[in-house]
Amino acid sequence: MSMKRISLLLIQLSCCFNCGTCGKVLVWPTDYSHWINMKTILDELIQRGHEVTVLTSSASILIDPNTPSAIKFEVYPTVLTKDDLEILFVEWIRKLTYDLPKDTFWTYFSQIQEIEREYSDCIQRLCKDVVFNKKLMMKLQQSRFDIVLADTLVPCGRPTTLYETMGKAEIWLIRTYWDFEFPRPFLPHFDFVGGLHCKSANPLPKEIEEFVQSSGKHGVVVFTLGSMVSNVTEERAHTIASALAQIPQKVVWRFDGKKPDNLGPNTRLYKWIPQNDLLGHSKTKAFITHGGTNGIYEAIYHGIPMVGIPLFADQPDNIVRMKAKGAAVSLDLNTMTSTDLLNALKTVINDPSYKENAMRLSAIHHDQPVKPLDRAVFWIEFVMRHKGAKHLRPAALSLTWYQYHSLDVIGFLLACVAIVSFLVLKCCLFGYQKYFKTEKKKKRE
Amino acid sequence: MSMKRISLLLIQLSCCFNCGTCGKVLVWPTDYSHWINMKTILDELIQRGHEVTVLTSSASILIDPNTPSAIKFEVYPTVLTKDDLEILFVEWIRKLTYDLPKDTFWTYFSQIQEIEREYSDCIQRLCKDVVFNKKLMMKLQQSRFDIVLADTLVPCGRPTTLYETMGKAEIWLIRTYWDFEFPRPFLPHFDFVGGLHCKSANPLPKEIEEFVQSSGKHGVVVFTLGSMVSNVTEERAHTIASALAQIPQKVVWRFDGKKPDNLGPNTRLYKWIPQNDLLGHSKTKAFITHGGTNGIYEAIYHGIPMVGIPLFADQPDNIVRMKAKGAAVSLDLNTMTSTDLLNALKTVINDPSYKENAMRLSAIHHDQPVKPLDRAVFWIEFVMRHKGAKHLRPAALSLTWYQYHSLDVIGFLLACVAIVSFLVLKCCLFGYQKYFKTEKKKKRE
Repeated sequence: MSMKRISLLLIQLSCCFNCGTCGKVLVWPTDYSHWINMKTILDELIQRGHEVTVLTSSASILIDPNTPSAIKFEVYPTVLTKDDLEILFVEWIRKLTYDLPKDTFWTYFSQIQEIEREYSDCIQRLCKDVVFNKKLMMKLQQSRFDIVLADTLVPCGRPTTLYETMGKAEIWLIRTYWDFEFPRPFLPHFDFVGGLHCKSANPLPKEIEEFVQSSGKHGVVVFTLGSMVSNVTEERAHTIASALAQIPQKVVWRFDGKKPDNLGPNTRLYKWIPQNDLLGHSKTKAFITHGGTNGIYEAIYHGIPMVGIPLFADQPDNIVRMKAKGAAVSLDLNTMTSTDLLNALKTVINDPSYKENAMRLSAIHHDQPVKPLDRAVFWIEFVMRHKGAKHLRPAALSLTWYQYHSLDVIGFLLACVAIVSFLVLKCCLFGYQKYFKTEKKKKRE
Repeated sequence: MSMKRISLLLIQLSCCFNCGTCGKVLVWPTDYSHWINMKTILDELIQRGHEVTVLTSSASILIDPNTPSAIKFEVYPTVLTKDDLEILFVEWIRKLTYDLPKDTFWTYFSQIQEIEREYSDCIQRLCKDVVFNKKLMMKLQQSRFDIVLADTLVPCGRPTTLYETMGKAEIWLIRTYWDFEFPRPFLPHFDFVGGLHCKSANPLPKEIEEFVQSSGKHGVVVFTLGSMVSNVTEERAHTIASALAQIPQKVVWRFDGKKPDNLGPNTRLYKWIPQNDLLGHSKTKAFITHGGTNGIYEAIYHGIPMVGIPLFADQPDNIVRMKAKGAAVSLDLNTMTSTDLLNALKTVINDPSYKENAMRLSAIHHDQPVKPLDRAVFWIEFVMRHKGAKHLRPAALSLTWYQYHSLDVIGFLLACVAIVSFLVLKCCLFGYQKYFKTEKKKKRE
């Protein structure tokens, strides 16, 4: 299970929760796409009258304290700047997307380790800027929050293990559901709230709506590589543009790089697109995606088949799932040709099974006893109301490693066997000696 | 996990479900307390416009086709009579309650096996009367049901395993929840709907209400041993009556045996009591119960501490859970003295921790995103809407035993190792022979 998907957890902090309607929520978020999910929950908590405080650094990228909102932002100063972070992210993504796939198997892992070390250093820097900020720590303690809502992609405290982190949360809100996951056992303090940010489509901006409508019966293809990747290399852009130019659909491509000279008249580039509104548009036929969970969930929500071009992190894994469920075709950004992309698009648009499977996943997603966002909010409020969710906590989390593996029991049983064996042996020896002495005595007589 | 609690399952049968609002439901129920749970679900399905047909024998005890209801009963004739079945049940319960506990460890299991064989024979008889009834089978097939709702305590068909039975259901509705269970992993096609039959208390019949009100500040104790056991031996009744006579509370005892001569003026005997309405009454202080899940759930629902006198089946296990959660004291019907029962009652009534724990379980029970009955009905309708719940079915259920244990993979890898070892050995031998021959040749020269 990737740490990226196990991402929101709630830890019950203090006991000051008033059994009335409102609680005080402290949030430790992760930037970029994770923030989009988290903000959906926070907006709902605000709507329901809770007081929400987000702890974020002065170098945050998408987490913007100046956005008009009832969310309170506690911005802690850090030596890093927003530019520092952005440069680091761009460099990591460049390495992960273009350099690593070309490396040999052996250099791949050392490179990944190097990136993870750099990322970890950066997170540790930010973490120290919080924990050693005595004034801030005092203020947080005095605020007596009822709950901490933490995105565990970025844990903060000395080195830890997944097992230790898992044991600290009262409830785990997992960013997937059974439309995306394959059935497997889970514990009762897990709730699968994937797609909690999804909603019906709003009308498109006038210019995009006109372009979409101009597609006629062929419809449109939506293309984006997520909130972190807004462009590709010139050579790759050329390959992609060539494929897109050959399809009868119109294409809405989120792209912030140099315009490819072979861009077809059917393709328009945008620095930003209303992704959910486009995926929910009746003209949309397919979605070319990097395979982030947010985008995949919007496609599932609206029942749109996908062409996956996964780049890094959990994206390849996510696309494999959609491929296995028959709702996507997968391509490799570095090795794909124009023909590959063209064929993939033709397949997901013209082979009706892809649309049928996407619609089947959509039906599963929409047919839940409670909507994912409502469940997420329910469990957050539950932890506040009951000062935790102890009744859902497996006893195994409170055991030491030797108790968990029953080593104490096995040790005790082995000791018993050893003692009994020793006693039996001693008895036999004693009996044998006695018998031997008697025999000797008899012989002497 | 006892088969008694994993008791309701849904199997998708046919594909005739019209995507409108109504479905055709075929029910294979179990008698006594299980029927009480099942009927709650069926009444709700009827309310929601579904057509419900219950398949039951002419010898059924609590499943009464003459009850006024919109439920259709398909009564199949059987050679057994209602009296036969009642005599068998009374005899089994007598053995399980009084004879077995006195037996030695070794005779205990052979006796249990004997009872299970008799029960199995009886079930097989009923089952044959259905399956070999050609006219009935034809009628059922022609009815084109959308779903089968089956209580798996009484499976019908050739001998089967728990694993095989588990694999046949689309959804398992488990008759417990995390107020009762200890947290453990489960699969996504399980839903825990324990307490689905619970509801707020209705006003009591006038005579009982007057008796309850006469208890003043001391309140009342409710005592019943479940739908199957309405009396105890004279000697045990005497012991119980003696204890009950010594408490300041009034006692409502469901008892259908010979009135004990030492019955206190504070105790009244009834052949039937409105159990849920009594447990939900503000005067009720404690519940003396045999530990059936229905009764335990009514006590949890209303937050009433318990004195458990478990008799057989899952009852001892159920009471152990309530004891571990601090909401019950456990006694043994055969060995307990008047003082034991008196002390147990004093403990659960006067030690505030028992009431607090019962109220904590009650709070957990009431604080769910969706009520248990609504969830049960949701999943039944889901299976009808989607012609199954394939997306929740673990792939493991479709594997053979050797695939499940990866024996095919292990076998293949071992074969690979064997072939490589063989080839390496052959190469070495060949190299050695060649070297040896060359050396020999050299020596000759």
